[in-house]
Amino acid sequence: MVGSQIAEVLKSRHPRFPEGSKVVAYVGWRDLTICSPDKMKAVFSGVLPLPDLKGLPNSYALGAVGMTGLAAYFGLLKLCQPKAGDTVVVSTAGGAVGSLVGQIAKIKGCKVVGFAGTDEKVKWIKEELGFDFAFNYKEVHLDSILKKFAVEGVDCYFDNVGGEFTYTVTRNMNEFGRIAICGAISTYNEDAKNNKVPFDYASMVYKQIRMEGFMINRWFNEWKDATLQLAQWIHEFDDNSQNPLSSEANARFYPAPPFRFPPSPPQPLLSRRVE
Amino acid sequence: MVGSQIAEVLKSRHPRFPEGSKVVAYVGWRDLTICSPDKMKAVFSGVLPLPDLKGLPNSYALGAVGMTGLAAYFGLLKLCQPKAGDTVVVSTAGGAVGSLVGQIAKIKGCKVVGFAGTDEKVKWIKEELGFDFAFNYKEVHLDSILKKFAVEGVDCYFDNVGGEFTYTVTRNMNEFGRIAICGAISTYNEDAKNNKVPFDYASMVYKQIRMEGFMINRWFNEWKDATLQLAQWIHEFDDNSQNPLSSEANARFYPAPPFRFPPSPPQPLLSRRVE
Repeated sequence: MVGSQIAEVLKSRHPRFPEGSKVVAYVGWRDLTICSPDKMKAVFSGVLPLPDLKGLPNSYALGAVGMTGLAAYFGLLKLCQPKAGDTVVVSTAGGAVGSLVGQIAKIKGCKVVGFAGTDEKVKWIKEELGFDFAFNYKEVHLDSILKKFAVEGVDCYFDNVGGEFTYTVTRNMNEFGRIAICGAISTYNEDAKNNKVPFDYASMVYKQIRMEGFMINRWFNEWKDATLQLAQWIHEFDDNSQNPLSSEANARFYPAPPFRFPPSPPQPLLSRRVE
Repeated sequence: MVGSQIAEVLKSRHPRFPEGSKVVAYVGWRDLTICSPDKMKAVFSGVLPLPDLKGLPNSYALGAVGMTGLAAYFGLLKLCQPKAGDTVVVSTAGGAVGSLVGQIAKIKGCKVVGFAGTDEKVKWIKEELGFDFAFNYKEVHLDSILKKFAVEGVDCYFDNVGGEFTYTVTRNMNEFGRIAICGAISTYNEDAKNNKVPFDYASMVYKQIRMEGFMINRWFNEWKDATLQLAQWIHEFDDNSQNPLSSEANARFYPAPPFRFPPSPPQPLLSRRVE
């Protein structure tokens, strides 16, 4: 996965990308880029008009109103389908995606239990982002914690880690539980064949659990609406200084990047970094 | 899971179950049963009117037009959602459920690759039931077989086994592949926590695979239509002596049971076995 950047169109023959307009470019971090947007078909390769950020800094299009925000938004809403009153578990809850998942779940009226890997993150997601419960997964016994703090059973699990963590959450799910697999960081360094994990097929059957992996390009046609909603939630937060989405808190761990986005030469589309 | 039986109502105060009518009773194998059908809420516990079998022997309501037929029907059609031209893999394809899954997938215009555990079953599902390819899973290397006989990739997997078999099929799936988990016979004798398996979370994410367990009670409101369709397919097969559903072939491995279904004493519903 290459880096993305906010860039400015220097020369263009493409009607969707007028010269002077800004774009989100999934092309790596470059000074200058020449590309034909309509021909970029690979996953996470492409150039899109900068979404309407409703006055937020452009850098938000690389984070909470960009790919990580969209992953949280679509994975939670499309696959976990949380209803008000549901219990939602989030792993890597202090991460760029997980921190937003928990906040969106709160907006939807859910009880949210988050797990992160440092006490600082745990404090942040609980005290500033409004997670109902948060724990340092390195220091707790997951099964016991779920039996105590999600005693009513888990309805939705936003999975960023896979493996034994996912097994334990699955065992604590309710009938018709939904798992969105966004990532599986516990398995990335291993050959899946050699990295054997507990997996409870029987729970999957008897509880009729649905587990689904996703990439956000699948809902490309809905990105515009999603980014508008994300930007709107951030504004509401800034106005209220409480949930919806915490841009300030988000900025603390994921600072609006001071990346210097680079320019690029003509034909069909030429974009350069935005300072 | 207790056994089911076809029974006759001897005494009844329940308007849906007139005296003399026949029922499918999920109550175990009994001579006489007294029960209140509306109060039987447990999974696989209940009494239902005998479905319209369109002239087939009553015993079909315990098999291809009963629970195993419904498992094949709903698991495949609701969760795998096969489209004409899709490639469908079935494990335990010589079983009461799997043998029907493959036949329904053929009716839907799919390519079907089945795996069973004896050469006799393999011959049967290929030569009599019309599976496109069939293999004895004990004698082949699954990954190589799929790469050769499902080289276009697997779209649907009807899973009865779980574990390493499921891992290997998942690795050979196409984007947006669908897995219906009906059972997990490879894991039934083990504590899931100790029985570690390979599970490829990365394939789940990058191929956006959906995996879902199910119980047929979930589609209870559609049982009537489903049993009518299954009975209809069996009749079409008997008329054509080729697919749709092979009742004769099915009968060879799963003979219409000569069980002697038992009677039972009055109040609110009294049913007895049908001879």
